[in-house]
Amino acid sequence: MQKLFEYNWQVRQDWFNWCSGVDRDELMKPRTGGLGYILPTLYHIVAVEYGWICGGIQERVIEIPAFGEIASLELVQDFSARCHAELAPFVYGWSDELEDRIMVDITDEGEREPHPYGEVMRHVIAHEIHHIGQLSVWAREIGKPPVTANLIGRGLFDK
Amino acid sequence: MQKLFEYNWQVRQDWFNWCSGVDRDELMKPRTGGLGYILPTLYHIVAVEYGWICGGIQERVIEIPAFGEIASLELVQDFSARCHAELAPFVYGWSDELEDRIMVDITDEGEREPHPYGEVMRHVIAHEIHHIGQLSVWAREIGKPPVTANLIGRGLFDK
Repeated sequence: MQKLFEYNWQVRQDWFNWCSGVDRDELMKPRTGGLGYILPTLYHIVAVEYGWICGGIQERVIEIPAFGEIASLELVQDFSARCHAELAPFVYGWSDELEDRIMVDITDEGEREPHPYGEVMRHVIAHEIHHIGQLSVWAREIGKPPVTANLIGRGLFDK
Repeated sequence: MQKLFEYNWQVRQDWFNWCSGVDRDELMKPRTGGLGYILPTLYHIVAVEYGWICGGIQERVIEIPAFGEIASLELVQDFSARCHAELAPFVYGWSDELEDRIMVDITDEGEREPHPYGEVMRHVIAHEIHHIGQLSVWAREIGKPPVTANLIGRGLFDK
């Protein structure tokens, strides 16, 4: 489980670096699909991971700023770093015995939906990779090569 | 490990169904980013999963048709079904003790690169989700809602 989170965190950092070489206008230009903008996509990835793990599974009282409050690359990166510091200990403490524990999500319609922790964790993993795939298309629209999505070759499994 | 493969296979089937409601011209129209076309992306996802698992890890002699030989939705779906039948037993037989076994990949430059099985399996998982994210953008370009990427709500964890 940890390795796919580490992959996402590494790729996310690569995208933050990528963004630092792109005009802010491009990061906030409306685009087709997904969230429709590059920087709000990165914000959304962070908010969803933090919301499910710290707010959902850990049932902590969390505050997620609206995008408008942190609408710059630097502030979204700060937000990502803060969330990472809070949630990484849970990810690194993950063990198979947590797989079947249940958290209860309250949906937008007010319904109580139970989810095994293992389902939530994989949802968060897939969610980030999916949105990063969208960034890769938008990068090409700007004319810049996207960050590589390869998991192999990142040194994640080096001993 | 199995759950993320099952997620990918379910999402892939949803995309095949989605494609069946779209003109073939749209499936083969050049697009920005990734592989540059919808149907070749689905072919590529299948070929990469099959190549790494059956050709790479299992060291079986495999044949991967060129896209041009199976350039229709029906034939790519058949290819996917054949590959799935061959590789699914390995995925369902996966256990933690396979994590650190080593396969040797021969790169395009002829170099031998060792990879733990666990790295290869996660590479394959992330690879498919990433490309599916690209399809979701192209779907919106066509004006059709994409397949949902949500992992939660697919019944993957129902007992």
